[in-house]
Amino acid sequence: LETQPSLTHEQLQSLEQELAKIYQNYCSLNLKLDLTRGKPGTEQLELSNALDGILQGNYCLPNGTDLRNYGGLDGLPEMKTLGGQLLGVHDHEILVGGNSSLTLMFQYLAMAFAWGVQGKETAWNREDAPKFLCPVPGYDRHFSICEELGISLIPVPLTGEGPDMDQVESLVKQDASIKGMWCVPRFSNPTGEVYSDQTVDRIAALGKTAGPNFRVMWDNAYAVHAFEKDAPPLSNVMERCRAHGTEDSVIITGSTSKITFAGAGVAFLGTSPNNLDIFKKHLNALTIGPDKVNQWRHVLFLKDLDGIQKHMDKQAQIIRPKFEIVLKHLSSSLDGKKMGNWTQPKGGYFISFNTLPGLAKEVVHLSAEAGVKLTPAGATYPYNKDPDNSNIRIAPTFPSLEDIDQAMQVFTTCVQLVSVRHFLK
Amino acid sequence: LETQPSLTHEQLQSLEQELAKIYQNYCSLNLKLDLTRGKPGTEQLELSNALDGILQGNYCLPNGTDLRNYGGLDGLPEMKTLGGQLLGVHDHEILVGGNSSLTLMFQYLAMAFAWGVQGKETAWNREDAPKFLCPVPGYDRHFSICEELGISLIPVPLTGEGPDMDQVESLVKQDASIKGMWCVPRFSNPTGEVYSDQTVDRIAALGKTAGPNFRVMWDNAYAVHAFEKDAPPLSNVMERCRAHGTEDSVIITGSTSKITFAGAGVAFLGTSPNNLDIFKKHLNALTIGPDKVNQWRHVLFLKDLDGIQKHMDKQAQIIRPKFEIVLKHLSSSLDGKKMGNWTQPKGGYFISFNTLPGLAKEVVHLSAEAGVKLTPAGATYPYNKDPDNSNIRIAPTFPSLEDIDQAMQVFTTCVQLVSVRHFLK
Repeated sequence: LETQPSLTHEQLQSLEQELAKIYQNYCSLNLKLDLTRGKPGTEQLELSNALDGILQGNYCLPNGTDLRNYGGLDGLPEMKTLGGQLLGVHDHEILVGGNSSLTLMFQYLAMAFAWGVQGKETAWNREDAPKFLCPVPGYDRHFSICEELGISLIPVPLTGEGPDMDQVESLVKQDASIKGMWCVPRFSNPTGEVYSDQTVDRIAALGKTAGPNFRVMWDNAYAVHAFEKDAPPLSNVMERCRAHGTEDSVIITGSTSKITFAGAGVAFLGTSPNNLDIFKKHLNALTIGPDKVNQWRHVLFLKDLDGIQKHMDKQAQIIRPKFEIVLKHLSSSLDGKKMGNWTQPKGGYFISFNTLPGLAKEVVHLSAEAGVKLTPAGATYPYNKDPDNSNIRIAPTFPSLEDIDQAMQVFTTCVQLVSVRHFLK
Repeated sequence: LETQPSLTHEQLQSLEQELAKIYQNYCSLNLKLDLTRGKPGTEQLELSNALDGILQGNYCLPNGTDLRNYGGLDGLPEMKTLGGQLLGVHDHEILVGGNSSLTLMFQYLAMAFAWGVQGKETAWNREDAPKFLCPVPGYDRHFSICEELGISLIPVPLTGEGPDMDQVESLVKQDASIKGMWCVPRFSNPTGEVYSDQTVDRIAALGKTAGPNFRVMWDNAYAVHAFEKDAPPLSNVMERCRAHGTEDSVIITGSTSKITFAGAGVAFLGTSPNNLDIFKKHLNALTIGPDKVNQWRHVLFLKDLDGIQKHMDKQAQIIRPKFEIVLKHLSSSLDGKKMGNWTQPKGGYFISFNTLPGLAKEVVHLSAEAGVKLTPAGATYPYNKDPDNSNIRIAPTFPSLEDIDQAMQVFTTCVQLVSVRHFLK
């Protein structure tokens, strides 16, 4: 981004006055709009309403399993198959959890930290200062897990096809205290980029050069969440790990949270049988097992990967127009003005917008004053520190089309106003 | 128990031969019976079949909450009220979890251990050797949590009305490294005893003399699980804590696991608002929130404490005959023979049987050889070490009446056979 436009000082002053007037007008509307949350919209959720009642009183499976009773630490076999298709792993490489993949990530990392991924002597907390790589901009709840555990975060830039792998490889090779890396490999939160085949392969190979007990946290939350037909596919990380002999180095997570119900879905964790065995021993201390009734509802409702795909096609119909309207406003208001750039994802839940350096907080602040809530600037960086103060995450799935339309008018006005005031300084 | 009966050596020898013949006969029947698991029986579970489908398509509450979406770290207000009635705490003293109270116990204790109940400097792992008191015989999964965390377990005997409080008070006063105590205060697992009012009051007062950050884990799993009308009530521990000013010292847990569905119920944790605030901050790092859809199903199905009571009355009709048949066999086969003693609980899921010292393992072994599976001897003690090798937990809720009848014939035969062989030595 160049920081100097081609307008004269006078032209800028008059533009500032014009934009300020438009902005004041928005402020007088008492808007209450929200572009912060990566939540499914109501229409999306309604597609899964058949879940409750789908059992029709049949709580017992042909093999004798009573869904209502205790038992089954790692999930129903049928749900493992479905989850395995979603994550791209075999049935013996997966376990099924409760309603939250975030909980599975926390539990795995807490175990790795305090109990060890391969027994006590491998616990990360035995080392001086365990660290994790975080591709940025990224997902604040990933950062929070590491902060809660006391694992330091090292940001690594995303390139549009995944993290800068030269930098990742060099860091991992020279510092054995780097114990892992966060990845949202398809429709990354918030950039929406999909890791390229080469990036996936290089990540799968990290286990060969990294220090001991290195783990890539592969949060494939948006595995089937394309809303454009030509969205790039993601190559299978576990297959690449098999090729490199690094199956223990990757922990793949996913859920139906953004397929069926965001708060009442089913979560999965896929990894090597070796890792699974150790993790299951740990889980056995803290639960008798996950909710099998809800798992079976999902098996009946989604059936298989084809069923999931058909269901997600319906969601795409709902989500695509919401992204289109965001992109339309960005394009019509900001194209060619050198006031910011943004991603144009073909799936997922977010658009990542970069203001000119130093202006993100002010844009978020002005938008809020006009009744448009945005994710706080900085939230997409570890410790809330965006070094450029430029990244803003836009989440258009939850609000209505009308609300997005209105909110984006305010947002693009704020971007222009803050930029012009910056040029005038 | 006296260890010497009034029979002559010859009479014992002939009795041994007679019992061995009966035992051999059972062995030839190829029985496959199981008295190990504290699981609800199928008939009990069927009482809650209406849960799936109870929403009838209504996923949105009048206040606007969409049950299907993200949000609500600590549960629906209506579920807090219901859980609060169950645990005996106010709405602001409770949070609602997923399907497992065991998970909430683990999460709380893991936080207390590694992060501290009142901030980092209060973490138990900063002390040399944190310890927990365990009333014995007790619940193996409580022990497992402490073992996983590295908290040592000190057994304290149960008296029939709760733990030996003289011993508890003396231990807690003299050793500040004792950080807490496990309690199953009503229908204790496995003795079935109910803590007396005086015991509850003395436990509530422990926080005054114990070392810093002491926590009683009050696992009220069987709060409403009386199957006899004259079962003793349990006094309200939180009210006693308020009287002593020790509200921070007790963590009350419970669930609907043995009310509705064992694997798909709703769990609760009740404690002081002070403790809740800190625990919620920790939970916020590992989940976006529990399954609200399932919570609302439970609110609609159980309604209130009165609804729970009516539901549990139906369960009592199913469970009572199962306990009666166990007690009938114990009484008719063993009364007056000085070969063991047993509890006669008025609620809960277990009967605790004590063989003559040193014989429990052999009784469990012989029963298993005859096709009757019992909880391993020792399992009711920390580190699987029953110092007397005498305690056996009998769990009659899951098998059918016919199976219990058959299994108890085998069990009482094994007790007699092993005892007589012991007398002959």
